[in-house]
Amino acid sequence: MLVTGDKERNLKRAGELVREASRKGARLIVLPEFFVCPLDLSVLPDCAEEIQGKISTFLSELAKETGSYLVGGSFPEREGERLYNTSLFYSPEGIVIAKHRKIHLFDVDIKGGISFQESKVLDSGEETTVVETELGRIGIGICYDIRFPELWRKMVLQGAEMFVVPAAFNMTTGPAHWHLLMRTRALDNQVYLAVASPARDEFGKYVAYGHSLGVDPFGKVVVEADIGEEIVYMIVDRERIEKVREQLPVLRQRRPEVY
Amino acid sequence: MLVTGDKERNLKRAGELVREASRKGARLIVLPEFFVCPLDLSVLPDCAEEIQGKISTFLSELAKETGSYLVGGSFPEREGERLYNTSLFYSPEGIVIAKHRKIHLFDVDIKGGISFQESKVLDSGEETTVVETELGRIGIGICYDIRFPELWRKMVLQGAEMFVVPAAFNMTTGPAHWHLLMRTRALDNQVYLAVASPARDEFGKYVAYGHSLGVDPFGKVVVEADIGEEIVYMIVDRERIEKVREQLPVLRQRRPEVY
Repeated sequence: MLVTGDKERNLKRAGELVREASRKGARLIVLPEFFVCPLDLSVLPDCAEEIQGKISTFLSELAKETGSYLVGGSFPEREGERLYNTSLFYSPEGIVIAKHRKIHLFDVDIKGGISFQESKVLDSGEETTVVETELGRIGIGICYDIRFPELWRKMVLQGAEMFVVPAAFNMTTGPAHWHLLMRTRALDNQVYLAVASPARDEFGKYVAYGHSLGVDPFGKVVVEADIGEEIVYMIVDRERIEKVREQLPVLRQRRPEVY
Repeated sequence: MLVTGDKERNLKRAGELVREASRKGARLIVLPEFFVCPLDLSVLPDCAEEIQGKISTFLSELAKETGSYLVGGSFPEREGERLYNTSLFYSPEGIVIAKHRKIHLFDVDIKGGISFQESKVLDSGEETTVVETELGRIGIGICYDIRFPELWRKMVLQGAEMFVVPAAFNMTTGPAHWHLLMRTRALDNQVYLAVASPARDEFGKYVAYGHSLGVDPFGKVVVEADIGEEIVYMIVDRERIEKVREQLPVLRQRRPEVY
């Protein structure tokens, strides 16, 4: 979805898209990182809400109405004086079953490319998040978290069969690394991976790369969005996970005593 | 290089290629996995030698003659009753400065693709290998070792600035994963990576994928061989390593207390 500076409009649009995905049969729906307000550090404090707030009420009702598991992308969460980049995960009953706070903040300064200091405004999460659902065990990470292989390995050792990733790479890191990192995390850990990006807004302050993906446990891209608004669908076949893990048994062949 | 069933021929050919690379200015030269005998488990025991043997004498003299650092691909090493897939690393004086025994053995059984059980014949190494040279600190892994992100992370935490990888993917795993894994290990750890494959022998028992690569610390392929015999050259710029690590400081931003 295209994220604008208008919070009301963004919530309304998210609702329309989630309803459409649900109508077409989606049982687990993932919204992009910062779907309620654009990735502009100066506006995040204004957009921020506590966990109990308008955004969470909206997401809860939407999950319940559509009867789907819903990963509410992420939003700036306020707790006391602190802000976090937080993803809420809802059951089809509209209950929060997991909360992930982005662990790794995006602080980079690439010459001739992107410069961004997320930690000037946000604090970082302290915990990995793997949640048990009727659809399988699902691990959550947000955007820059994808650059740290340790996190995803820990989640697969905690039983994850699928990773969901609200994310917003930019026009420097996107072309260079988006597919590479998403595919390798899925392949190394032999899980399905769904990553949801905001649509590209060429005139935005932060130009997201787009290209939401579904990747299978062999590291293959099975579905890919273009740069505009688009819902993409992936069938998650738990038998395929077992098959890949049996044929190429890397998870059993690890040598933790050596590392 | 093309690896044949004739050990003498393979050593001779390796000598010619190493001399040519050296003449053209290479200071660190990497031969492919099992450059002395083809990847055919039934012939490995016959081809095997102890560390002190014909192969090591040959490599030592070659390193000394050319005045180059030489990673002698790998060969089947015999120690008592056991066999290992071993890489010897020589200084320009012809001294062994490191020995890496492949840690993860290639045991896979992909339906409609490759089936291979390396552990039926070989034993596995127990240690990571990072060696200090005048050119920088270099970590070594062999082929299937590349599938385990923990190993490469450990080596970078031990100070590696470059990875060298004698390897021989096949016609199932090569097209699916070769570039993906090599690029991501380099990118995640912000090192140069050089991977050397045997040339493709369509009539061999094990058909290697070829495509020897040089990858930079931003995960970009800077040089790539085709499927035949070919020497490829990469310039390793240690300042670029520092620059990438400064601009995208993932190694500092790790959160080991969380994983």
